[in-house]
Amino acid sequence: MIESKHIEALRQLLGGKGLLTAPADMAGYETGARYDKGRAAFVARPASTAETSAVVAYCVKNGIALVPQSGNTGLVSGSTPDVTGSQGILSLDRLATPFDLDQVNRTVSAGAGLCLSDVNRRLEQAGLFFPIDLGADPRLGGMIATNTGGSRFLRYGDVRRNVLGLTVVLADEAGTVLDLSSGLRKNNTGVDWKQLFIGTSGAFGIVTECVLNLEPLPRQTATAFLVPSSTDRVPDLLVAMEDALGSYLSAFEGMSRNAVSAALAHVPALRNPFQGGLVPDFVILAEISRTSPPRAGEQPLDEVLEEVLSAIWEGEDAPLADAFVGPPHEMWALRHALSEGVKHSGRLIAFDLSFRRGDIMRFLDHMKAGMPEQFYGVTICDFGHIGDGGVHFNLVVPTDDPRLANPGFEAALREWVFKVAVEDFGGSYSAEHAIGRKNQVFYDRYTPDEIRRLAAGLKAITSPGPLGSVTF
Amino acid sequence: MIESKHIEALRQLLGGKGLLTAPADMAGYETGARYDKGRAAFVARPASTAETSAVVAYCVKNGIALVPQSGNTGLVSGSTPDVTGSQGILSLDRLATPFDLDQVNRTVSAGAGLCLSDVNRRLEQAGLFFPIDLGADPRLGGMIATNTGGSRFLRYGDVRRNVLGLTVVLADEAGTVLDLSSGLRKNNTGVDWKQLFIGTSGAFGIVTECVLNLEPLPRQTATAFLVPSSTDRVPDLLVAMEDALGSYLSAFEGMSRNAVSAALAHVPALRNPFQGGLVPDFVILAEISRTSPPRAGEQPLDEVLEEVLSAIWEGEDAPLADAFVGPPHEMWALRHALSEGVKHSGRLIAFDLSFRRGDIMRFLDHMKAGMPEQFYGVTICDFGHIGDGGVHFNLVVPTDDPRLANPGFEAALREWVFKVAVEDFGGSYSAEHAIGRKNQVFYDRYTPDEIRRLAAGLKAITSPGPLGSVTF
Repeated sequence: MIESKHIEALRQLLGGKGLLTAPADMAGYETGARYDKGRAAFVARPASTAETSAVVAYCVKNGIALVPQSGNTGLVSGSTPDVTGSQGILSLDRLATPFDLDQVNRTVSAGAGLCLSDVNRRLEQAGLFFPIDLGADPRLGGMIATNTGGSRFLRYGDVRRNVLGLTVVLADEAGTVLDLSSGLRKNNTGVDWKQLFIGTSGAFGIVTECVLNLEPLPRQTATAFLVPSSTDRVPDLLVAMEDALGSYLSAFEGMSRNAVSAALAHVPALRNPFQGGLVPDFVILAEISRTSPPRAGEQPLDEVLEEVLSAIWEGEDAPLADAFVGPPHEMWALRHALSEGVKHSGRLIAFDLSFRRGDIMRFLDHMKAGMPEQFYGVTICDFGHIGDGGVHFNLVVPTDDPRLANPGFEAALREWVFKVAVEDFGGSYSAEHAIGRKNQVFYDRYTPDEIRRLAAGLKAITSPGPLGSVTF
Repeated sequence: MIESKHIEALRQLLGGKGLLTAPADMAGYETGARYDKGRAAFVARPASTAETSAVVAYCVKNGIALVPQSGNTGLVSGSTPDVTGSQGILSLDRLATPFDLDQVNRTVSAGAGLCLSDVNRRLEQAGLFFPIDLGADPRLGGMIATNTGGSRFLRYGDVRRNVLGLTVVLADEAGTVLDLSSGLRKNNTGVDWKQLFIGTSGAFGIVTECVLNLEPLPRQTATAFLVPSSTDRVPDLLVAMEDALGSYLSAFEGMSRNAVSAALAHVPALRNPFQGGLVPDFVILAEISRTSPPRAGEQPLDEVLEEVLSAIWEGEDAPLADAFVGPPHEMWALRHALSEGVKHSGRLIAFDLSFRRGDIMRFLDHMKAGMPEQFYGVTICDFGHIGDGGVHFNLVVPTDDPRLANPGFEAALREWVFKVAVEDFGGSYSAEHAIGRKNQVFYDRYTPDEIRRLAAGLKAITSPGPLGSVTF
């Protein structure tokens, strides 16, 4: 347990609203979005970079471990304390300033505690948005710490691509503030230090403010469900679509029958869009969009999409068996319900994998073929981002399966998936969720020794204090 | 001078073709693209990552300094040795393998010694390209070491955005090879080490291979010259164009009358496209493009551009005074001739600056107003990338100006420009040329102490040996 003099000192630094210690107040911060429940020594809620620096400096000087927490929507136990009760949480939730839009520069300077939805709501009337499209509603600091990608990665890239500047507090005895807050697009003057804090789970420093690239809001969108002629033709379909549509193509999302069926079964608001209600083996949600407003002489996007799909479908040895254009909000509603549907189908064991684009379907087919022999009765409910190689590889086990009582079962399942994905297919065990306590073991296993040595050295020179839930 | 036993040992490692020591053979490597002439102890030309590692390990163990050299097209003395004759050049020019195109993944694995033009020529029949558009023809390793941007940054970003993997040799006693060669688009498993070698002039390691993101080749393009109603309305014009065209817009390049006139005067093949031959004060080259092939129902891009420009021009208080659509190759020919034209106009003192987009024209107007008083007779021949904030701020001094004999004159001029650009306007003193011996002094001046301390620490844990022309 933490000494009461430390609690007093932190309360001095932060004031009453800035420090929580009552169990009821802390409970929400101690519980993860899906998996975990830890115990916090306190929750520090600085409202400025200066307060963050003061808290961090105090904690480093007194050997108090801090776990930074942003929106707490992550799935790898990256933002919650462990069960010892010795770690404090440093929450970003009061870092809500600044919010300075620079319309000409197409950037916003924003507090790391702002929610994605809030940022985009405030940008809407300027016709701009921060183009990371996610099911969850994280805060900016956590998006940076995990380098989230999402469903429009194909068009807009990940957080790394869209961060132009950061303000960071290092975990050293001074609580050093690094001002990397340039709003410049081109600036090559040495090491680009902000890259260190993107995707590294807060272990190297705490992001308090950021400068984000903004994009013009899409003003025309068309979507279609595509049924590939077989799963191994999905890569050909992607290439054909990119070839015909180029940068019009803004999403190319894969959905397995199991995932779609789970969503239709568990999310009553959804309409089954498939003929006779028969869900195909595998469906692609393709989206094309234009950021320009419709103009008189211009062909509507729906027609563009229809024409391109017809041409692909009519070709010899076509990779496309069927396709239909439909209302974007309805099609995306199904896509966004997959996660919810899968969660309610049984005990969920989830993986956030990525592959070279040509390997995703090969991996999925391989796992489908091997599952009955390896883990009979486990259902694969995958969906993901074929356009950028990401796949949410979800395994569902019936809740009454007696094997669930054996902790070795899930462990063996995880081992198998990671071995095939990483070792046999050259994939990543963390596409866009980054590293937390939950996948630390895989970081330790799959990171080459020389990289781990470099990371430890880098940690020692930047933020030597105990920060974050991960050991790099 | 380097001992002959070292030369012998390096020749053993590299063979006859791999090591140059004769002055005539080395001369081309010792001379920079524009400014400098150094003296090399030798030129090592490894033909593989393994040979690179062996050379680097030998040199680090024996305290021999190496300057990596790629296409040697840089303008900041980053790739040439100093005048002492004690530094060896490590040339990438024989690192021409692999060249493995992955069409589905839209990536190529390529040797760092390949030229940009060569890479794009070999990709052409696949309908893909590495989307960095430059006047020069560098090799890939140097493009990575300088994080080049170029004229289509607005659409495709810089090298950093388009590098998916690297193979790097560190300057330690083992010549450690870091395999960061994933071709994955999403992969968040700790520190993204490849970022360290992008834009850092080869000081942290030598890139021998890379995995590059490719983009579909544009298949429709339209260009126009725009004359803003005044220079301070250029930002409004940019915003209006982005608002109307969104991601169609692939270039928005600014050209001053002085730069255009210099090109027209010194590059005879160019046609003067302006009415009555009168070059406007400031001209924008705007390009829109589609990567999709033309389709029957679709409005031609020229018409799209005409319509959008008419609408902007007809608006009240329009930022546009005049505009005309014309053939892309002719318009780009003028744009690409600016550098050549300016070079022949007198003694050139060049700056590679960048600003927030709203600040470029303010900076240029400020300098134009101040120049007569500060440095009478010096002409500003600027051009640049308004869309991403970059400006090639070229100053031309008549070759017979007696002040040129005084070395303090150029120094004072540089001081003034950097002071105004960096201190008064918050700009960057190196937008896309990175750091070399030539601008080391500005790195030392404008880099905060804590960043310099971190960079030195990082250098010590990654590549402690003497590598590169810069001290970070």
